[in-house]
Amino acid sequence: MAENHTVKAFDEDISKLRGLIAEMGGLAEVAIADAVDALSRRDEAKAQLVVAADAKLDALEAEVDQLAIRIIALRAPMADDLRDVIAALKISGVVERIGDYAKNIAKRVKELNSKGSIEPLTLIPAMADIAQGMVRDVLNAYAARDSQLAMEVIARDEKLDNFYNSLFRNLVSHMMENPATISTAAHLLFVARNLERIGDHATNVAEMVYYAATGSYFTDRTVQVRIEDDE
Amino acid sequence: MAENHTVKAFDEDISKLRGLIAEMGGLAEVAIADAVDALSRRDEAKAQLVVAADAKLDALEAEVDQLAIRIIALRAPMADDLRDVIAALKISGVVERIGDYAKNIAKRVKELNSKGSIEPLTLIPAMADIAQGMVRDVLNAYAARDSQLAMEVIARDEKLDNFYNSLFRNLVSHMMENPATISTAAHLLFVARNLERIGDHATNVAEMVYYAATGSYFTDRTVQVRIEDDE
Repeated sequence: MAENHTVKAFDEDISKLRGLIAEMGGLAEVAIADAVDALSRRDEAKAQLVVAADAKLDALEAEVDQLAIRIIALRAPMADDLRDVIAALKISGVVERIGDYAKNIAKRVKELNSKGSIEPLTLIPAMADIAQGMVRDVLNAYAARDSQLAMEVIARDEKLDNFYNSLFRNLVSHMMENPATISTAAHLLFVARNLERIGDHATNVAEMVYYAATGSYFTDRTVQVRIEDDE
Repeated sequence: MAENHTVKAFDEDISKLRGLIAEMGGLAEVAIADAVDALSRRDEAKAQLVVAADAKLDALEAEVDQLAIRIIALRAPMADDLRDVIAALKISGVVERIGDYAKNIAKRVKELNSKGSIEPLTLIPAMADIAQGMVRDVLNAYAARDSQLAMEVIARDEKLDNFYNSLFRNLVSHMMENPATISTAAHLLFVARNLERIGDHATNVAEMVYYAATGSYFTDRTVQVRIEDDE
């Protein structure tokens, strides 16, 4: 009876932890969409809202940290349960960083404003859609412990990388042909890079979800090498 | 007697954890220095060694994770001790990411090779020196629980940010005047950005060290806002 009580309390704690991470994921997704929308329309007011909203993600990460530490201290979870709590700690850190990338995109809106149009900017929203979809689906995979969906997210990262490489070349060509927009294009290079990094982080979470669901590491070498890349 | 035994075992465990982090810090420092040296001299062979050496940092991070989980499971540390273990988990993650930035710099060496000289490249080693010094000192501060040194590292980050902003402008001007080197300069933008991010990560660790040593958060708002920036 006492043991059942402890098990129930632990399950409630871990559900709360997962609920906080789901909330973080939702905010990160909205931040990506809003940052890129603000960029496309050069809407500085909206960009500022994205920057301000990031504080909520930071606060939620701190809440996950504190709850995880409390769970470990009070429930002394063993083996798989402990790994579940540590995974939650790590995943919340990654989602917080995804929010930071969105914030960084939003911060560049004021650098782009009133500096003339630039054609490669029209490709950014499509790239952002892929990144945002990866974040949404990897958090669904985490919530449902769905290894199949996690694998699909991992597979999509190659598409995002190709998009990034093509956009990089596109922006460099644009710079050569339009020296007046070099500064704007340089900021867009970082925006594209941030979106590519969001995909890498989603892939990273997908690998943790895959491992937690199946007990084995996702073995495709290409993917492994890629996600060890810079953060 | 049994309690003393447990305390001693815990102290040995945490020393081992700190030793692994010190080892990671040493490798990360060398990786920054070697990556930038390879870049300056366009030494592709050395760059490849930096890329290959990063696997050791990844392995050490995994070792820290496993040891931390074992300590929590076996010793069930409470309050401050538990926070120490969680801090080690977080710091090892940050140091691993610092190594990833160095690896990313090394990966760009082949993009720069045989594409003509570019003047802003001469400024990169001085910037790297600051970043590397921050990583070295923050790990010394962590080992010695030295809040004063942690504060000095935090203060140095502004210098690195100014360096980055000046290099960004320098590279953009260079692109406008030398369209033929735009692609090389674009890669150097990312190198400069990686060094700036290394400083942010060192600052992040410095804040954790400061908190662990003093029990209060480092309160300078400027710094707090800056380190919440994108990762």
